[in-house]
Amino acid sequence: METQEHPDQTALAEIGEFGLIALLRDTLGEPTDDTVVSGIADDAAVYRVDDERVHVLTTDTLVEGVHFDRAFMPLEHLGFKALSVNVSDVVAMNASPRYATVSIGIPQNISVEMVTTIYEGLKQACEAYDMHIVGGDTNASHGLSLSISVVGTADEDDVVYREGAQVGDKICVTGDIGSSYAGLKVLLRNRERLQEQEEDFEPNLDPYSYVIRRHLAPPAQLKIIQDWADIGAQPHSLIDISDGLSAEVHHICEASAVGAQLYEPALPIDPETRNTATEFGEDVTVYALFGGEDYELVFTMPEDDLDALDPQTYSVVGEVVELEDDDQPVKIQRANGENVPLQPGGFDHFDSPSPQQ
Amino acid sequence: METQEHPDQTALAEIGEFGLIALLRDTLGEPTDDTVVSGIADDAAVYRVDDERVHVLTTDTLVEGVHFDRAFMPLEHLGFKALSVNVSDVVAMNASPRYATVSIGIPQNISVEMVTTIYEGLKQACEAYDMHIVGGDTNASHGLSLSISVVGTADEDDVVYREGAQVGDKICVTGDIGSSYAGLKVLLRNRERLQEQEEDFEPNLDPYSYVIRRHLAPPAQLKIIQDWADIGAQPHSLIDISDGLSAEVHHICEASAVGAQLYEPALPIDPETRNTATEFGEDVTVYALFGGEDYELVFTMPEDDLDALDPQTYSVVGEVVELEDDDQPVKIQRANGENVPLQPGGFDHFDSPSPQQ
Repeated sequence: METQEHPDQTALAEIGEFGLIALLRDTLGEPTDDTVVSGIADDAAVYRVDDERVHVLTTDTLVEGVHFDRAFMPLEHLGFKALSVNVSDVVAMNASPRYATVSIGIPQNISVEMVTTIYEGLKQACEAYDMHIVGGDTNASHGLSLSISVVGTADEDDVVYREGAQVGDKICVTGDIGSSYAGLKVLLRNRERLQEQEEDFEPNLDPYSYVIRRHLAPPAQLKIIQDWADIGAQPHSLIDISDGLSAEVHHICEASAVGAQLYEPALPIDPETRNTATEFGEDVTVYALFGGEDYELVFTMPEDDLDALDPQTYSVVGEVVELEDDDQPVKIQRANGENVPLQPGGFDHFDSPSPQQ
Repeated sequence: METQEHPDQTALAEIGEFGLIALLRDTLGEPTDDTVVSGIADDAAVYRVDDERVHVLTTDTLVEGVHFDRAFMPLEHLGFKALSVNVSDVVAMNASPRYATVSIGIPQNISVEMVTTIYEGLKQACEAYDMHIVGGDTNASHGLSLSISVVGTADEDDVVYREGAQVGDKICVTGDIGSSYAGLKVLLRNRERLQEQEEDFEPNLDPYSYVIRRHLAPPAQLKIIQDWADIGAQPHSLIDISDGLSAEVHHICEASAVGAQLYEPALPIDPETRNTATEFGEDVTVYALFGGEDYELVFTMPEDDLDALDPQTYSVVGEVVELEDDDQPVKIQRANGENVPLQPGGFDHFDSPSPQQ
């Protein structure tokens, strides 16, 4: 595939987001600074501030028309979500968020009142996570965008990376998954019906209130890692779910050089998510594995250590196994007993939905 | 002025960028965290990492069509400049840049090779400033954009704010000013002529090589603050020039509750800048005061302390005086002897150029 303007050059779609990130990492080279504990490899970068403490730093951008649609994303939720997705990356290092900067791109059709509403959502998120926005930047822009950076703190020994998974670990997921994608499906259908002005369409979103909220204002799982700190629990590996459970388990396997066996019946799925998928005539397991934007945590831990955790807060969805096939590190035993290889973005013989709108 | 879509709401142009920032600061409230030394008030936020050391954190975004035009901005320079403008904010706190994250928005007409070229420019800047890009984010976007955050380090006692200017201080500027704006004028004229395909137009940019370089790849003044550290010099107040000397001196005056007296003949202007202004039939003092994007430093210091500095590195352009009139804190004595009030964006009786393209 080639770009139209530059036929001799490579289109981004050809190498994909992860290919691009690998290429840019090579271009920049490895940091030579020995205070840098971890660079472009995990949910957030890690650097030492003294003999014991580290800071983690992450950045994430939400772009109108790519990550959200203003037609159904209330601006207050947008502010809340934009901070949450960054806090989720800090939490996924087992670190506590402290400081944030916000760079907002403002198109001409956005008023002062609308910008203020976004910042009210940001403030709510700051209060929820006990952190502060300490700086930022405002710019004219073609579409609304929010680019946020968050600094978190942790003891160096407490930081958990993707790369620590060990054979025999249980693979666990907090909360439930697939609900954000179910919410997106409902919102997209609603927008379509409103646009078509179907005469008999009376929007009633009550039956979908949970999945819609999960899509519009997902909280980061800060409370979970605070509970772990209180009881002295620490997973071997940890990542948050932005791209879908399957993609995240693949990241853990690649970083840790292990395989994974998942079990479809064990996937934690809310009844509302299940009902929504049924209504759309779709497989709810696809929502759970590939939907993304759940901002729950995936972690691996020895079975014995799990006893200390509150059983209400997580589900065991599989286990870490020896890596047998580099190209197919992850398998899932389906409800019918069949054990099939899983790809980051879909079953080998299933179509996966696109997490993009 | 009202936005078209929301006639009851306030357009951003009505309150301006600084009005918006003040409003957002009110919306967020002051940080209650006692590790936060300085929030949304200066070039960068400041927070403590231990009893002696602080980190500073800043973020800045360059947006295609707003901050740069791909028609004349080589992508390698874009990468260099995007990091430099952030490093300049760190330097303006008298701190040293250490770590950066880059969030890049990539439109469909940008190839892998073009993105890599931008990152080569970022890497050059990292080498120039002895720092590292430790993380980032890639996004699909409607226009090319680079949102960068930089963390810097300093002893808490060494940080210099806008607010420390004292009556009697000399007002000093490093390097020369107005050249970036002169370079922009030449580049815009060149683009226009190329678009019009004037038959007799043979672009010769050699006579403008300095001013063009100043616009496309301005360096941050890290060396200056390193020299100060070596000799133990520390200004009372410090800011970098992104919006033009006049705007920055106004910021210092407002933060420090002082006035300023500037002298037009003392403004450091390169001959190439002067020639360019003459060629365009414009007043070079307007370029120097309001052009912006010079990324030089403005600092105030007692005259006695200046003796320790290398006289090649700065020019005295005025002095800090008692604040007499809140609405007109800054005056400039023009070359003809007349002493006139200065506004942040223009003389009272002069038209100022727009720093936007």
